[in-house]
Amino acid sequence: MEPSTGYRIDELARRFGLEARGDESRMIRGVAPLDRAGAEQLAFLANPRYATDLAHTGAGVVVLHAEHADASPVPVLIARDPYLAYARIAKLFEKLPAATPGVHPSAEIAVDARVDPSASIGPGCVIEAGATVAAGAVLGPHCVIGTDCTVGAQSRLGARVALVTRVTLGKRVLIHPGAVLGADGFGIARDEDGWVKVPQLGGVRIGDDCEIGANTTIDRGALEDTVLETDVRLDNQIQIAHNVHIGAHTALAGCAAVAGSATIGRDCQIGGGAGVLGHLEIADGVTITAMTLVTHSIREPGVYSSGAPIEENRAWRRNAARMRQLDAMARRIAALEKQVEVLTKERS
Amino acid sequence: MEPSTGYRIDELARRFGLEARGDESRMIRGVAPLDRAGAEQLAFLANPRYATDLAHTGAGVVVLHAEHADASPVPVLIARDPYLAYARIAKLFEKLPAATPGVHPSAEIAVDARVDPSASIGPGCVIEAGATVAAGAVLGPHCVIGTDCTVGAQSRLGARVALVTRVTLGKRVLIHPGAVLGADGFGIARDEDGWVKVPQLGGVRIGDDCEIGANTTIDRGALEDTVLETDVRLDNQIQIAHNVHIGAHTALAGCAAVAGSATIGRDCQIGGGAGVLGHLEIADGVTITAMTLVTHSIREPGVYSSGAPIEENRAWRRNAARMRQLDAMARRIAALEKQVEVLTKERS
Amino acid sequence: MEPSTGYRIDELARRFGLEARGDESRMIRGVAPLDRAGAEQLAFLANPRYATDLAHTGAGVVVLHAEHADASPVPVLIARDPYLAYARIAKLFEKLPAATPGVHPSAEIAVDARVDPSASIGPGCVIEAGATVAAGAVLGPHCVIGTDCTVGAQSRLGARVALVTRVTLGKRVLIHPGAVLGADGFGIARDEDGWVKVPQLGGVRIGDDCEIGANTTIDRGALEDTVLETDVRLDNQIQIAHNVHIGAHTALAGCAAVAGSATIGRDCQIGGGAGVLGHLEIADGVTITAMTLVTHSIREPGVYSSGAPIEENRAWRRNAARMRQLDAMARRIAALEKQVEVLTKERS
Repeated sequence: MEPSTGYRIDELARRFGLEARGDESRMIRGVAPLDRAGAEQLAFLANPRYATDLAHTGAGVVVLHAEHADASPVPVLIARDPYLAYARIAKLFEKLPAATPGVHPSAEIAVDARVDPSASIGPGCVIEAGATVAAGAVLGPHCVIGTDCTVGAQSRLGARVALVTRVTLGKRVLIHPGAVLGADGFGIARDEDGWVKVPQLGGVRIGDDCEIGANTTIDRGALEDTVLETDVRLDNQIQIAHNVHIGAHTALAGCAAVAGSATIGRDCQIGGGAGVLGHLEIADGVTITAMTLVTHSIREPGVYSSGAPIEENRAWRRNAARMRQLDAMARRIAALEKQVEVLTKERS
Repeated sequence: MEPSTGYRIDELARRFGLEARGDESRMIRGVAPLDRAGAEQLAFLANPRYATDLAHTGAGVVVLHAEHADASPVPVLIARDPYLAYARIAKLFEKLPAATPGVHPSAEIAVDARVDPSASIGPGCVIEAGATVAAGAVLGPHCVIGTDCTVGAQSRLGARVALVTRVTLGKRVLIHPGAVLGADGFGIARDEDGWVKVPQLGGVRIGDDCEIGANTTIDRGALEDTVLETDVRLDNQIQIAHNVHIGAHTALAGCAAVAGSATIGRDCQIGGGAGVLGHLEIADGVTITAMTLVTHSIREPGVYSSGAPIEENRAWRRNAARMRQLDAMARRIAALEKQVEVLTKERS
Repeated sequence: MEPSTGYRIDELARRFGLEARGDESRMIRGVAPLDRAGAEQLAFLANPRYATDLAHTGAGVVVLHAEHADASPVPVLIARDPYLAYARIAKLFEKLPAATPGVHPSAEIAVDARVDPSASIGPGCVIEAGATVAAGAVLGPHCVIGTDCTVGAQSRLGARVALVTRVTLGKRVLIHPGAVLGADGFGIARDEDGWVKVPQLGGVRIGDDCEIGANTTIDRGALEDTVLETDVRLDNQIQIAHNVHIGAHTALAGCAAVAGSATIGRDCQIGGGAGVLGHLEIADGVTITAMTLVTHSIREPGVYSSGAPIEENRAWRRNAARMRQLDAMARRIAALEKQVEVLTKERS
């Protein structure tokens, strides 16, 4: 980070509602990791895994929880949630590339598309008939906005984002490069000669403040829309099938996948590589750990997992072979229990 | 769905070989889900999960199996396979964007590329030397057709599909945005200094009527071609490695992956997120459930699965810890059986 | 493969340090699989799975290990590592598309970007302010090189590769189409109203000779950089989260994913679809098998696995149900052991 405008520690405390301890007059001009930060940089300690770095930090100030304050050799800003406080402060030091309003001359805009004059349309973008790009929206190079799709106000699309068919984005939606929204859902029916494609007549509706990761795909619905409510956060390479409905504030980590017509509640967290089978319902407040496969509906909030644990390969081979004998093992235990019961009774 | 040309119920019955019951003179002008359809819309009931919606439907007509006909409050069209019948009928109400024949002025076409005059080449497409685009093919914006690649007649490519090297598409192939076909297979050999890349000298051949999902990748072969026979259906974000061969009518759900030189038979169904290891063979008619890892060849048709079931996290932790003790548990059971046998013999 | 310049077998032996046996004067003009090669083609035998093809081969020469030499009906080139020797020889017969130096007229180059005159910039590329493209680099169509990003000398980017923010590529880096490097890491903190985005202020550094597969994503760091050391090899659709560090010569197969701040050592091999949780450390020389989830740090080289084995679905259902009873089963075994011990003691 190059130096930028500075803020005094007491100014940061006031602005973000934090308690400062130590020399509050220091100037902070950037952020850095705890083990590398210099005297004009702010660091944070949120994950206890990194608490040992605190003793040696050269940071100008550290954002941390009260329980770690006494261990800091430098001034601190005390927060109930240090990661959250850091997130807000770090925004001060982020330089987002400025987007010039207007349409790049190499972009192709259909005559009846509506592009707000304050929107920024990058090189090579294609905006098709009937599409709308609202005020302050920014489209990176090579975005394709299909017929009748809508990009909401202040939304930002990275390079080559494709909105294919009947996609509506809310306000302040952030989409990273390579994402594809509104392609055909995977609907096929079998007849005697082969597969018959099922027309995908629905769309995709993305709520305000959603974030969608690089190369993520969200298919449009078969009849109804595929829906993300407000503030849903999707990491990279996530697959959302047709007619899925995801509740507000739910977050999915990289490579998670949700099959058709599944409904996921609000405030859920789905781990990386996890899968949700089709037509299931997941309640509000459910956490699914990484690479878990959800095979039935989940009605209660809580944490859910599947999978067998990692082991050194030879041990794993021995144990995995036994997994195929588990039902037999259970029956052998039951038989033993009966025999031992008989023996024990006879003894008495 | 906006209203469109209508069809009488008896006309639909005749056209699709279905039995109508109820007022056959009603006009149908669109399709909709069972629980939302109005008097001029057709709905269908295929998944018994949704049978309870039938009693309250306001649809103009419902396509369903004979066993549900009596429960319908509205006219019905009886089909042996309601989902298949629906797929065919719904095509009547699908408005596909019309593609104008010709080459967009911003497309780059190599002088010796052959583009049929009836093909439609979108903005920013790049068609390299020796490539062929046959009659009626439609290329969305920013497609790249590499040297000597071929797009078969009536094939449709969404935005920014890349055919890299030695890719041949059959007729009526449908490819969704972001798919990459014919990139280098992942072939590396190790020497003392590091990895040596193995040249990937084969190509990719895609049969007629295949469908390939958004952001799916199909690598070209190392020596021979990677092959999809006719009517193979791939969902989004699928990875097909070099030299894989997939038989006709096989379908793979989202995020499935097939490693190098694996051969998958005809009429297989591979679930979402499933993996097939390299050099294996899977017979015709095999179904693999979601997130299963296929670690050996499968010679018989049937359904195959792997994985441990989902549980509430604390229960899962207790059980998963025991998976590491399974071999020891099996030995303890065997030891117990011996001891109990001795005790039982002595008793008699 | 069409015929090309030929090489005598003895010339190949000399050039690649191999021992030739049989008629060394034969001319070789291409490469082909063992079971299909003709008299002017070289084949190889590396995987013993294909040893039965040797007896019937019509190849002009076969590269193989000494132990198979006597079984060959045709001349041979004996190598300690036949696959490696083949990789080197096959390069002779690879025709890479020639890239013309210069900037395609449809590319958009910012006035202060530095593009070496020997670099080749394809149609529709966008090179933003402050970016650098070094000597001999080749950018396929529609690549986007973001502000201040650097493409090292002799690097080759396929179609529509995006380097988003603060990405630096070393020399001879090869990136396949659709890859996205330097998009925002997935950093979010929760407040009472919803998610707060954590600014992603780091970058991505890719070492010399790395290869990155199609549609792979590598996020930029939150504070520090995401790093691939030299000669790291990533297959397609891999997800590398922010702040990950991967050591030299490590290879990841398709669809593997590494969560934030994980550190992977040198000379590791990560199987397809495998996952590594965040903040873990994996030692040098570790192999992880396909679809394994790494849930704790690995300190010792070796092979590690997780997962339950594939079975016919009905057997799997029976066994999987028992996985939920494993802890109870273990307790029942322990109880039986106590009872049997008592019975055995009493007997004596």
